[in-house]
Amino acid sequence: MRKDLCFALVGGDLRQSCLANLLAGEGYEVYALGFDDCVELTDEVCCTADLAGTLAKCDVAIFPLPLTVDGTAVNAPFAKEPPALKACLRALNKKALLLGGMASEDVCALAREYGFAVLDYYQREEMIVRNCVPTAEGALCIAMQETAKTIFGSKCLVTGFGRVSRAMTALLLACGAKVSVAARKQGDLAWIKLMGAEPVPMAKLKEAAASQEIIFNTVPVKLFNEEVLCALHKDCLLIDLASKPGGVDLDAARHLGIRVIWALSLPGKVAPISAAQIIKDTVFNILEERGA
Amino acid sequence: MRKDLCFALVGGDLRQSCLANLLAGEGYEVYALGFDDCVELTDEVCCTADLAGTLAKCDVAIFPLPLTVDGTAVNAPFAKEPPALKACLRALNKKALLLGGMASEDVCALAREYGFAVLDYYQREEMIVRNCVPTAEGALCIAMQETAKTIFGSKCLVTGFGRVSRAMTALLLACGAKVSVAARKQGDLAWIKLMGAEPVPMAKLKEAAASQEIIFNTVPVKLFNEEVLCALHKDCLLIDLASKPGGVDLDAARHLGIRVIWALSLPGKVAPISAAQIIKDTVFNILEERGA
Amino acid sequence: MRKDLCFALVGGDLRQSCLANLLAGEGYEVYALGFDDCVELTDEVCCTADLAGTLAKCDVAIFPLPLTVDGTAVNAPFAKEPPALKACLRALNKKALLLGGMASEDVCALAREYGFAVLDYYQREEMIVRNCVPTAEGALCIAMQETAKTIFGSKCLVTGFGRVSRAMTALLLACGAKVSVAARKQGDLAWIKLMGAEPVPMAKLKEAAASQEIIFNTVPVKLFNEEVLCALHKDCLLIDLASKPGGVDLDAARHLGIRVIWALSLPGKVAPISAAQIIKDTVFNILEERGA
Amino acid sequence: MRKDLCFALVGGDLRQSCLANLLAGEGYEVYALGFDDCVELTDEVCCTADLAGTLAKCDVAIFPLPLTVDGTAVNAPFAKEPPALKACLRALNKKALLLGGMASEDVCALAREYGFAVLDYYQREEMIVRNCVPTAEGALCIAMQETAKTIFGSKCLVTGFGRVSRAMTALLLACGAKVSVAARKQGDLAWIKLMGAEPVPMAKLKEAAASQEIIFNTVPVKLFNEEVLCALHKDCLLIDLASKPGGVDLDAARHLGIRVIWALSLPGKVAPISAAQIIKDTVFNILEERGA
Repeated sequence: MRKDLCFALVGGDLRQSCLANLLAGEGYEVYALGFDDCVELTDEVCCTADLAGTLAKCDVAIFPLPLTVDGTAVNAPFAKEPPALKACLRALNKKALLLGGMASEDVCALAREYGFAVLDYYQREEMIVRNCVPTAEGALCIAMQETAKTIFGSKCLVTGFGRVSRAMTALLLACGAKVSVAARKQGDLAWIKLMGAEPVPMAKLKEAAASQEIIFNTVPVKLFNEEVLCALHKDCLLIDLASKPGGVDLDAARHLGIRVIWALSLPGKVAPISAAQIIKDTVFNILEERGA
Repeated sequence: MRKDLCFALVGGDLRQSCLANLLAGEGYEVYALGFDDCVELTDEVCCTADLAGTLAKCDVAIFPLPLTVDGTAVNAPFAKEPPALKACLRALNKKALLLGGMASEDVCALAREYGFAVLDYYQREEMIVRNCVPTAEGALCIAMQETAKTIFGSKCLVTGFGRVSRAMTALLLACGAKVSVAARKQGDLAWIKLMGAEPVPMAKLKEAAASQEIIFNTVPVKLFNEEVLCALHKDCLLIDLASKPGGVDLDAARHLGIRVIWALSLPGKVAPISAAQIIKDTVFNILEERGA
Repeated sequence: MRKDLCFALVGGDLRQSCLANLLAGEGYEVYALGFDDCVELTDEVCCTADLAGTLAKCDVAIFPLPLTVDGTAVNAPFAKEPPALKACLRALNKKALLLGGMASEDVCALAREYGFAVLDYYQREEMIVRNCVPTAEGALCIAMQETAKTIFGSKCLVTGFGRVSRAMTALLLACGAKVSVAARKQGDLAWIKLMGAEPVPMAKLKEAAASQEIIFNTVPVKLFNEEVLCALHKDCLLIDLASKPGGVDLDAARHLGIRVIWALSLPGKVAPISAAQIIKDTVFNILEERGA
Repeated sequence: MRKDLCFALVGGDLRQSCLANLLAGEGYEVYALGFDDCVELTDEVCCTADLAGTLAKCDVAIFPLPLTVDGTAVNAPFAKEPPALKACLRALNKKALLLGGMASEDVCALAREYGFAVLDYYQREEMIVRNCVPTAEGALCIAMQETAKTIFGSKCLVTGFGRVSRAMTALLLACGAKVSVAARKQGDLAWIKLMGAEPVPMAKLKEAAASQEIIFNTVPVKLFNEEVLCALHKDCLLIDLASKPGGVDLDAARHLGIRVIWALSLPGKVAPISAAQIIKDTVFNILEERGA
């Protein structure tokens, strides 16, 4: 990769400012747009308000994760006035690479009108896999804070056996919890046993859930409906790691007095520097594959 | 599952005789065919030579893994005269379920002519996954016996990141080895790092291989050609776990004086009882799904 | 052990009230003294103000950990007016067993005047060992909350190789941290390597400390004096788990801008129910050894 | 340590010849005595028969582990005629350091007559601790070879909780075995639980032993007397790692048909290079402490 690349970082939260610091720390020329309060940025990052001038001269524009919430403005919680997406696309150097996270089909179509292909770093497997670590650590930390027992020896259930579940299960086992994992496929149930956890066929979720102290849901489907929630012990803590619409019937849970914590976007909250490092490595993989 | 099922086990090695014992031990009616020397069978198993009569009355016929080697006779190393596959198909009760491992397309076609669908237990994910455990343990045991150092602290490389590699990597890490894993995909490299091993892009296999003490190949492609073998340390031990055609240029290795052990079918050799248990559980999953 | 034992619990914090609930939940007759606000106690516990009557009839009196802070009053943070130690000793049934934690020589002498031997559950090895789990988990949780990186991959140093250090080291390794442990004895350095951590001779503490992101001190000696503190990276987090007088020169640290968290009595804070369970098991071991 | 030290290695097995190779490989002047068949020695080691001349000029004489078996000749299984201990002491340079392993009181007294203090490397804690790794790996390898099941999922009991037991327990847990550990002290039972194994009070050894598939004894006391052996399952494998007199009543075991393997001196057998490395590091620690 060329060492003289010029990066423009537009909008984003703590992860994006950490990313700016990381890139600048490695000697790249870095501009940060949409950070009216520049406190978290090091002196090596050029914090600027000149959107047009900066985007016209950069080689790589990195937009945040998610790129936009409302579809028109860049997601920029630290900006008084978030930059408009169209203004960015209009100003951006036609030879520049445009990276962003969780770009919707609409956003990609809009970018194409301006001649850009959005390179979505959040669709990269290595990013998703590595993000499971701060997610699992964040969930563990919540469990430690919200219960009066040690994780060691506690009865934990993880639902699903995707990437987050695997990382969560491994971490809980490492801490000495008694871990069950509910999954649908026989092959997954076999892996769960190999890891040292107790496999639970999804059809037996309700029975298994009844004896748990902490449950970590990773499936974005309403597994925890009223019927299953009724079976839970009243002191059970339910941490939902599933993205929207989540896996818990929140009304039923409130009604039954079950404690539910819906923990979204943990990486940016609990470990913004690590989250930024993961984005940086992924962005570099993309740039290297494109010969940048 | 019905408790009065009658099983006929035809041919096979130690795993198949262990399987007969396990089934009989659970109270099923079990006949073993093709075991002229019945020493390994318990008294509860009915060791018989009456092929036609037995197959005509059984509910489930279990053939070995692999079902046949030459395509005509059942794989029956303990039989003086292995039963012919066609004779078995002719005699088998038309309502019986026919299970076997690694059935080729030709064998399946032949079975169809007689009205049977071969239920291949070796195509089941749970079987393949669980079989990785005896494979990894067997490979570990070979490594312990064939080197003059402890596994703890030794430099090990695993190639590939399929199921066997994951089990092998986990076991080596658990023993305190310094483990590198070579894989192609960025997502796999991310998982490898999460497991605590050193990820090696496959393009750097040669460089990484040069500093290893033990290498475990799991990829059935000639990764270890003359060029890579030349780079190995002369004391390096290369254990090939890949099925045919294997991953090592054996001629080049012999010429270069590199020690290679091609370790095939480890589960049946190192842990026939566990291997039989895995087959039994898989067979029961199949039977339950079919309402047997 | 007799099932009709009558327990009096005098004073204490959340651990002591959890202990009362545990004992009552197992069917014992339990009286709690010094809990003016009884909210945390279940209905099965008899919350009483009748010190004299209760102590006169109980078989076992359990005092808190520590038994007393000022040497005259029982340590009773939930009581408006903590009971006087002498009043308790005077009222206590002469045949009762008296248990307490961290009883000083003075307190033991005072008890002897009244005819009692203090059975100190905090001097029991099984109690100290098991207490290391909530201590290590509490320290891990602090580290997760106070840093912007994941524990996975972070550089951690643990000083000392006593019981807390062993539990802390195991937990950090399990979470995927890069762990060094500083110890004095060659035998301990050998164990540290066996665990998978990097052994650091105590004489090289300063050099090793310089490259760390998080340091966990377990040695109650001022290892972290100005000279060592000067060597730390400015972003390093120093968590001191050592009991008084602690292992850090706090003035020097403040002056140098090093973040120090002195985390004392973690078990009672982060996991009162587990801490109570540990006390309960230890008390039962003592009672069984005495044939109670 | 001085780089121009001259080492004489007298007698010993494969470990001692590996040690000679390691020292010579680091550039030291190394003489090997008592290796009539020098096949395992590299060209850098000077294989000599000149006992008197060599010992007169060396700085450090390293005798094997154990130093002597019969009390008069050096333990030298590779020598046609083992050197006499007195001849060595007479010839040895008075300024030389004399190291050996497992030196009896008689041997030390004899050395003192000639003006030498035997520095026993086998009394060093770091040596004993590190030796536990090849011992545990060797025992694991035996268990893998001698049973028809995988270690993963097998029921294993370890007796005692000294250094070998701790390493053995950790290795078995890492392999996914279901591990129980029998110990006497409450503190040890607490550690066993922390490690993730099932603690068994020694008083319940017989009951716990009855359900095991593999037992590893580490206690050099006849725990496995006829009464306990009677309780074992007939397929149970008993691996005795205890030094003489061992922990098993071998006559009773033979009578009962219990398979017992008394596995002594595993490090030298299964991992002579690692065992030599451990001796080398320990010898260097001794030399450094003496300013050599």
